Amino acid sequence: MENNSVSPMPELAPIAEFDKTPPSPTEETAVPMADLPSPPKTMSAQEEKAQLEEHSRHYEEENEWGCANWFEYTVVVVFSSVLLLGALALTLFWVIYYRDGFAWRDDVSKQFNLHPVLMVAGFITFSGFSVLLYRICRCCRRIYVKLLHTIFHALAIPCVAIGFLAVLDSHNLAEPPIPNFYSIHSWLGLVTMGLFVIQFVIGFFSFLVLLCCEGATAAFRAALVPIHASFGLTTFVLAVASCLTGLTEKVIFTLGNAYSSWPEEGIVVNTLAMVLVALAILVSFAVRSPVLHSNTKVL
Amino acid sequence: MENNSVSPMPELAPIAEFDKTPPSPTEETAVPMADLPSPPKTMSAQEEKAQLEEHSRHYEEENEWGCANWFEYTVVVVFSSVLLLGALALTLFWVIYYRDGFAWRDDVSKQFNLHPVLMVAGFITFSGFSVLLYRICRCCRRIYVKLLHTIFHALAIPCVAIGFLAVLDSHNLAEPPIPNFYSIHSWLGLVTMGLFVIQFVIGFFSFLVLLCCEGATAAFRAALVPIHASFGLTTFVLAVASCLTGLTEKVIFTLGNAYSSWPEEGIVVNTLAMVLVALAILVSFAVRSPVLHSNTKVL
Repeated sequence: MENNSVSPMPELAPIAEFDKTPPSPTEETAVPMADLPSPPKTMSAQEEKAQLEEHSRHYEEENEWGCANWFEYTVVVVFSSVLLLGALALTLFWVIYYRDGFAWRDDVSKQFNLHPVLMVAGFITFSGFSVLLYRICRCCRRIYVKLLHTIFHALAIPCVAIGFLAVLDSHNLAEPPIPNFYSIHSWLGLVTMGLFVIQFVIGFFSFLVLLCCEGATAAFRAALVPIHASFGLTTFVLAVASCLTGLTEKVIFTLGNAYSSWPEEGIVVNTLAMVLVALAILVSFAVRSPVLHSNTKVL
Repeated sequence: MENNSVSPMPELAPIAEFDKTPPSPTEETAVPMADLPSPPKTMSAQEEKAQLEEHSRHYEEENEWGCANWFEYTVVVVFSSVLLLGALALTLFWVIYYRDGFAWRDDVSKQFNLHPVLMVAGFITFSGFSVLLYRICRCCRRIYVKLLHTIFHALAIPCVAIGFLAVLDSHNLAEPPIPNFYSIHSWLGLVTMGLFVIQFVIGFFSFLVLLCCEGATAAFRAALVPIHASFGLTTFVLAVASCLTGLTEKVIFTLGNAYSSWPEEGIVVNTLAMVLVALAILVSFAVRSPVLHSNTKVL
């Protein structure tokens, strides 16, 4: 059960994070105790025994995960993954099919088109998968999930940065220039980006860099886990809210009165908005569900 | 600790709900056992003793609620209350000062003005206080909190209904008529209203009507509590998202290009949007915080 914690760190057994060869769950009943990793030299015989027992206990618990749990796991994970990719695909379709695709500096309206695509890619698809990883990877070792979580969020950074530059440029290079940061969407977007950066910096230092002093920082990191997870979920929901206000702005600016006569493009954008709302609900559910993971407290 | 549960129903002790005279917490250390309510005739001496012990235990636990908890309680409850009333006040100020106030049928644009005010009153202020009641009322009996929760949500119903009629009327009576249900805001609003109605009907029947067969339905009601609380929070956050898209629409339709030159009205509307975002975060925190209430599992 511990392997898929939201926690990048087990609260009471930080040392387990660097075990070298935990067997895959399919081997779990067959694995002899002797195959488990040798404990560090500093570990007493009693501690070693306790750790081995801990291993066996986890694998037994893993076995007890019933059909209903697997059903919920499959539905939530599969649905969320389909919607995360679907949101990006729908944004690409909208922008390429109805808004004439992309450009950089040559055509400011086409440069703007990079903004919705890159923001959805960064804030929704990459960040969403990054959060879901702790639910998807039931059988991987936590350090791998933690690194993948960091990589997915790191991939989101250039998307968000270029997406942000794209809209700034398309405003500043327009004739006449369009002012920045006056709308609800821009205020919300700035708050979301601020939270994202704070989360990334604090998460990177606390859960990766501080592993250099693993034992000394275990309590601090354990205490930070629920805060990191809660603010992460808040950032994701704020990102969805930013997208909803941004899509509302864009579709009114672009379609004007034609929006009210149910044009195809309007329906595509509305559908994209509904997909994003469904994602906010599903990802919140996946992170908080005690069935998908019962050991992590998320405020 | 049980008194302030999100649960309208104690999970394991449903009979405690109808105790006649629980002492106020200030009396808790002084109250002699003999002052506690006489148990129903059907209760055995052993059950009676257990119930009295349960009472004393709760009051002791209540006493142990430390300064830090009271600090968190005060900050979250006071902040949320100020923002819930602030959101309504700001909406009223915006509509009366910048949009010329209200009318019914005589002036469709003034009739529209009822829509944001009544929706914020119903979906944000009344619903928000209704949710927070389970956190505010630490010392009241649960059945009172439950009834107040129902009354606050019942008060939200006419607000939402008249707010909905106001926008329908103002669209249909406009010259030329404005189509309905074409925008992201309207789709989101319909989903939010649907969830609100489902929650109210299921909540009313499950947590009040089913009390007629109190013992027989206790397990069912206990199982429903986290689902009701989760969907309630989802409805509140969806309501905030609906407000954000609605405000974006309205401010663009009304101010047009002037919005980008930072007019006073634009800043007031953006501030209202930020207050709503802060409320979504604070109310979610209040509902889920294990400090404010540790016994309720909310998915």
